Amino acid sequence: MDRWILLKHLEQFIQEDLGDGDITTRLCVEDEIVKGVVTSKEDFVLSGVREATVLFEDHGVEVKEYFDPGDRVGEGDVLMEVRGPASVILSLERLALNLIMRMSGIATKVRSMVDAAEGTVVACTRKTTPGFRYFEKKAVQDGGGDTHRMRLDDMVLVKDNHIALAGGLQEAIERAKKASFSKKIDVEVVDFEGAVIAAENGADIVMLDNMTPSEVERAYTKIKDIRKDILVEVSGNIDIYNVKDYTPHADVVSSGALTHSAPAVDVSMTIER
Amino acid sequence: MDRWILLKHLEQFIQEDLGDGDITTRLCVEDEIVKGVVTSKEDFVLSGVREATVLFEDHGVEVKEYFDPGDRVGEGDVLMEVRGPASVILSLERLALNLIMRMSGIATKVRSMVDAAEGTVVACTRKTTPGFRYFEKKAVQDGGGDTHRMRLDDMVLVKDNHIALAGGLQEAIERAKKASFSKKIDVEVVDFEGAVIAAENGADIVMLDNMTPSEVERAYTKIKDIRKDILVEVSGNIDIYNVKDYTPHADVVSSGALTHSAPAVDVSMTIER
Amino acid sequence: MDRWILLKHLEQFIQEDLGDGDITTRLCVEDEIVKGVVTSKEDFVLSGVREATVLFEDHGVEVKEYFDPGDRVGEGDVLMEVRGPASVILSLERLALNLIMRMSGIATKVRSMVDAAEGTVVACTRKTTPGFRYFEKKAVQDGGGDTHRMRLDDMVLVKDNHIALAGGLQEAIERAKKASFSKKIDVEVVDFEGAVIAAENGADIVMLDNMTPSEVERAYTKIKDIRKDILVEVSGNIDIYNVKDYTPHADVVSSGALTHSAPAVDVSMTIER
Amino acid sequence: MDRWILLKHLEQFIQEDLGDGDITTRLCVEDEIVKGVVTSKEDFVLSGVREATVLFEDHGVEVKEYFDPGDRVGEGDVLMEVRGPASVILSLERLALNLIMRMSGIATKVRSMVDAAEGTVVACTRKTTPGFRYFEKKAVQDGGGDTHRMRLDDMVLVKDNHIALAGGLQEAIERAKKASFSKKIDVEVVDFEGAVIAAENGADIVMLDNMTPSEVERAYTKIKDIRKDILVEVSGNIDIYNVKDYTPHADVVSSGALTHSAPAVDVSMTIER
Amino acid sequence: MDRWILLKHLEQFIQEDLGDGDITTRLCVEDEIVKGVVTSKEDFVLSGVREATVLFEDHGVEVKEYFDPGDRVGEGDVLMEVRGPASVILSLERLALNLIMRMSGIATKVRSMVDAAEGTVVACTRKTTPGFRYFEKKAVQDGGGDTHRMRLDDMVLVKDNHIALAGGLQEAIERAKKASFSKKIDVEVVDFEGAVIAAENGADIVMLDNMTPSEVERAYTKIKDIRKDILVEVSGNIDIYNVKDYTPHADVVSSGALTHSAPAVDVSMTIER
Amino acid sequence: MDRWILLKHLEQFIQEDLGDGDITTRLCVEDEIVKGVVTSKEDFVLSGVREATVLFEDHGVEVKEYFDPGDRVGEGDVLMEVRGPASVILSLERLALNLIMRMSGIATKVRSMVDAAEGTVVACTRKTTPGFRYFEKKAVQDGGGDTHRMRLDDMVLVKDNHIALAGGLQEAIERAKKASFSKKIDVEVVDFEGAVIAAENGADIVMLDNMTPSEVERAYTKIKDIRKDILVEVSGNIDIYNVKDYTPHADVVSSGALTHSAPAVDVSMTIER
Repeated sequence: MDRWILLKHLEQFIQEDLGDGDITTRLCVEDEIVKGVVTSKEDFVLSGVREATVLFEDHGVEVKEYFDPGDRVGEGDVLMEVRGPASVILSLERLALNLIMRMSGIATKVRSMVDAAEGTVVACTRKTTPGFRYFEKKAVQDGGGDTHRMRLDDMVLVKDNHIALAGGLQEAIERAKKASFSKKIDVEVVDFEGAVIAAENGADIVMLDNMTPSEVERAYTKIKDIRKDILVEVSGNIDIYNVKDYTPHADVVSSGALTHSAPAVDVSMTIER
Repeated sequence: MDRWILLKHLEQFIQEDLGDGDITTRLCVEDEIVKGVVTSKEDFVLSGVREATVLFEDHGVEVKEYFDPGDRVGEGDVLMEVRGPASVILSLERLALNLIMRMSGIATKVRSMVDAAEGTVVACTRKTTPGFRYFEKKAVQDGGGDTHRMRLDDMVLVKDNHIALAGGLQEAIERAKKASFSKKIDVEVVDFEGAVIAAENGADIVMLDNMTPSEVERAYTKIKDIRKDILVEVSGNIDIYNVKDYTPHADVVSSGALTHSAPAVDVSMTIER
Repeated sequence: MDRWILLKHLEQFIQEDLGDGDITTRLCVEDEIVKGVVTSKEDFVLSGVREATVLFEDHGVEVKEYFDPGDRVGEGDVLMEVRGPASVILSLERLALNLIMRMSGIATKVRSMVDAAEGTVVACTRKTTPGFRYFEKKAVQDGGGDTHRMRLDDMVLVKDNHIALAGGLQEAIERAKKASFSKKIDVEVVDFEGAVIAAENGADIVMLDNMTPSEVERAYTKIKDIRKDILVEVSGNIDIYNVKDYTPHADVVSSGALTHSAPAVDVSMTIER
Repeated sequence: MDRWILLKHLEQFIQEDLGDGDITTRLCVEDEIVKGVVTSKEDFVLSGVREATVLFEDHGVEVKEYFDPGDRVGEGDVLMEVRGPASVILSLERLALNLIMRMSGIATKVRSMVDAAEGTVVACTRKTTPGFRYFEKKAVQDGGGDTHRMRLDDMVLVKDNHIALAGGLQEAIERAKKASFSKKIDVEVVDFEGAVIAAENGADIVMLDNMTPSEVERAYTKIKDIRKDILVEVSGNIDIYNVKDYTPHADVVSSGALTHSAPAVDVSMTIER
Repeated sequence: MDRWILLKHLEQFIQEDLGDGDITTRLCVEDEIVKGVVTSKEDFVLSGVREATVLFEDHGVEVKEYFDPGDRVGEGDVLMEVRGPASVILSLERLALNLIMRMSGIATKVRSMVDAAEGTVVACTRKTTPGFRYFEKKAVQDGGGDTHRMRLDDMVLVKDNHIALAGGLQEAIERAKKASFSKKIDVEVVDFEGAVIAAENGADIVMLDNMTPSEVERAYTKIKDIRKDILVEVSGNIDIYNVKDYTPHADVVSSGALTHSAPAVDVSMTIER
Repeated sequence: MDRWILLKHLEQFIQEDLGDGDITTRLCVEDEIVKGVVTSKEDFVLSGVREATVLFEDHGVEVKEYFDPGDRVGEGDVLMEVRGPASVILSLERLALNLIMRMSGIATKVRSMVDAAEGTVVACTRKTTPGFRYFEKKAVQDGGGDTHRMRLDDMVLVKDNHIALAGGLQEAIERAKKASFSKKIDVEVVDFEGAVIAAENGADIVMLDNMTPSEVERAYTKIKDIRKDILVEVSGNIDIYNVKDYTPHADVVSSGALTHSAPAVDVSMTIER
């Protein structure tokens, strides 16, 4: 059924790019069967290729994939070959490449962080491109990361503004615990005292936001002492350079930049008869 | 009516983030009127703030804007203030910030190129994030750039694959000229010979792709010689460092990286009672 | 924003009932302002009245509510009064009443179970009417119950068929644990052995399905022994008559009949000038 | 084309249950071909099985149906067998069963009434679950009943509130007769006098609401005397116990409870390799 | 609620014309408040002006209407005045005029037929422009005509192909009578014998297709003899010139040309400061 | 991909006509395979047949086309044959014929103008039926004409109201030239002076509106003198009788009546076993 969900999104993207039709292709190209070869133009971690495949297949184009999502590919590698009507392949080319470029860019950035994090879970956030979240979350998974919340209805995440408006951390957690038993409760805190309150009052996850490695260590030790099952999430300007300072005392590191500032990778398609 | 068009898109983005509702805010926050202050955390060219305003206003939140799209803002500047029900502001906060972060990132990158291009038009391409093109094109405009084609139905753009399948450049242009008189015809060429053929056969725009500055100069001179009104577009790995090598002999420089690889800027919102 | 979500659904319901318009009202009724009074015709727990209010208000009708969702109302009680154009009130009357009838029916059934369960959480399931789940889950909450999963993407719930196809309980749980850290894992088991395996392998919730009260007691004791924080959910033909046999050893009782077989309550609207 | 109409509705129901995907099945189940067997767990009149078939077939699952809609089935009967990818069958299982459970519940209740009504037409009303009307009306037909109006644009039905606002029964009917010649006019009356006025002024159908059997008999005789072709519809708290008091003097009996308070039947699916 | 239904349609029409925005108005016009005056440039029966009003009002433009739908207007008459932001009025101008042009064209054609038909009901058919039926049927009503069926689910209309495939007229009618009691049954026949069979077997309406005036007279007399309440509809190349040959023996005349071949009327809008 | 775009539109048209289903066909016709033959009943230029083909094929009906769009067909010609389930063919018949009737009507009118225009481009306008523009523009192309703007975002077209509100022709053109380099600029003028200003200030197209043939000649000569590449469009009450007075001095003639007042052609379908 993932294919079905995917197609719902892809239909909108086709509409966005196609409008009333690819007027250039309609004029210049006759309806012959051609082959399109998608090639990597740099080294990266592949993502988006499955999505491009579904896009093409749903419009009658055969696809041969040469790699799996998450694979490392090198410059010059053939990523996929498509075979079908020239008009369809040319009209969908840009969208297919846009999917691969962006998703692989994210997967590549995530993989670097995952490698640096040495076993700690690496998660993205809700700092995604509006309209494209489903794909960016998927790219994070392809890179080896964790999606974190998909939407605001997904997990309870008590943040600074909720705490301020609830009138304090303890009161905010009390209220949060009225959520369905099926939901986890994640509480964002900014210091040791907050971490202790969150852990003692029933948070499933305590998110240590913008704390130093030594503060993180202290809070982590105390939290695990209170209840071993509580997950410790660390967040705030963590990148591949400093992530190792945190990972010994973190179950999860989360970073918005994984999705909001990953440069696209370079891929191209050439058509052959 | 731009507001109406904008709202159509924003509705989808709200749905994407909200799902069945912001369960944290629903549980933790009472329905009081609060103020939200959006602050810049670095220097950049502002974009997305108008879109965020429409988003908030359409849900009953008053907005004060402090800058116009395209303004340069500095770290610490207050970008906008919103006033309304806490539940609405908190539920829309992330989407509003995501719009500003990404659009300003693009506007900032475009502005650097515009400044470097010293009067030559700077245009983006169709290498945009699927589902978010309308906003990325708008950000390019806010940065001082040109949208280029919005969709495949917007202008005739004859590219390598069309030429190959049409059986040659001249034949491809002949076919393209059957387009409506209301459409421009842009022809992508890769060398001097192609440029001459395109110019002599009626292209409105000749796009010189991946040619060296000296090749561009030679083609430009010849094209203008053939017909002064033909626009010369230069494309292919042009960035702020090399753009000046091309601009003396280009009416337009176009670059996909303006939209596909612009890092987001950093902004945040704080809530006050 | 809950109002916004609600309206998305209500728009579809209006369309379903209205088609090309209420031809009777269009012909027979002039556009005067009238009052509509919604009255209870039996005793029940109220739900749907907030939804009816949003329905009317969004079409320019003023509403006075006399009770809150979850209140017990008696035969003859005035539930709400609406004031606006006759044509609007008559055209929306049936939909408004359909919402109140069904949702109150569910809330009433849930409340009986909640009262009988003496503190144990009462949850519904995904056995809801297609197209109406959002409202049935809301009615369960109004009755004092818990929504359980809203959708298949909401929580990991490992059931018999997953276990069979994964090749055993332990393997199924291993696989399930690859879910995002933000998700709980609920594991359905049918006997003591299963319960122990689930508890020892990291289930957040163990659902004891169709087990006798004494089996439930034994499993509950063991599970809590393994890890105190694991929730025990009991399911399978539980109703208000037998629920007390289970509640001493259950954190949650879940029942599909709460939504799939709750008879509607009786309400009516009279129009006054 | 009924399949096409059906699929439009089913798409929304899939979306409602699936969201971003069946995360449990995605994690726990490999893509093998399996068989699912849907079995009845009590005696009832079958409905919804055609709809479930279309649901499965549209996603590449083969279906064998063992009964027709409207058939009586017994406890333990195999209702349908499906064969296809495990991931698809598991993801659609709940929706398929929800369709069968609810629709069969209604069909069963309708059939009891039809059997009791001994030839008089049994009709439902617009008291259906919002979002699910198409299916509830279909279930009524499968049970042997009549759909009555599908929507407010379907037939003119003059009710108490229309009469009050039009300033009297006769005036309301005069106005109603301006409807298209293609529409029938049904007039709800509460006493003998009303019945006579409706019949004499051109109603196609006279609905006797909440009248006693003897009042119904008197009105029926008089109406048929006025014009033989007028249909007499009887409504208001009619159930299988009292329906026979009315049927000798009614062409149609209509009842809201057929759809709003029919308990679901019990069915289950088991998966086999 | 008719306004609500109308807006659903109008939204699609705006989208169709507006796309990503009125680029000319966006560039050339500042946001001042202006007045637009819609003037008739020939004599006709007015329709579409209510729809144009709703279009403008929904986008914040005030409207003064000078005539009611169905009024005859003369060359030079001011039909409506609008006052609001220049950008909105200019962007919606063409759609508003398109509505009035086409709908008035139809209303005018219908009115001529209604006048010629001297009391016999004049009805259109389903020969409407795809996507615009709701408006064409409304224009027919504004002209004084009858909508006939809105859709295929509206009335049973047994035509030649149904009769052929059912194996004869009588069998077709037998089957048709299994429709809901709420539906009328219209039977198309081509000769006297067919008319008699239809009338004797329970048709509510007998449609005499392509019969001569004297054949119509004979059939009409016989049908009314069989049952006075049966409506006689006459169809097939009836226009204002020959309609009077039929009307003495017809309750309804129906004509597809009323909607499929009505030339648009001429109206224009001028903008004043 | 044109088929994909087409289907999006067709789905809405099916919905419009079908509603909850073709109740007559459902009742009267069994599911046999039949043949439908679409025949021309007059001479005309064919259009809409490709669209009808896609409509049928997408619902499992085989189609044989006997002519291409743009072909002249004579009375009695078989236009297409369809073969498939009776229920599908009967339910789609009216929509298919409506497409062919209207589109051929337009193509026929356009062809007359094209023939009269002897080589000058014949273009339609935005005076199309709301909801049906895509098809009317296609019919214009089938007739040999030019689509002109599809939407308001398609080309800059500076008209009288823009000029008035911009404060003069020259200022309006200055503003218009800020449009993307990818767009043409068309300027509507009403006299010689305006034509000169438009041509000298950079219009790509000058539209001479409601000018006499001799005024057109004078303006044309001057415009071409200023810059040979500027296109001259002539508009305003041009029909097949007067078009030749303009064509010697026009590159394009545009006319709204081509779409807004083209009578439908007559076609019918007969079903055979």
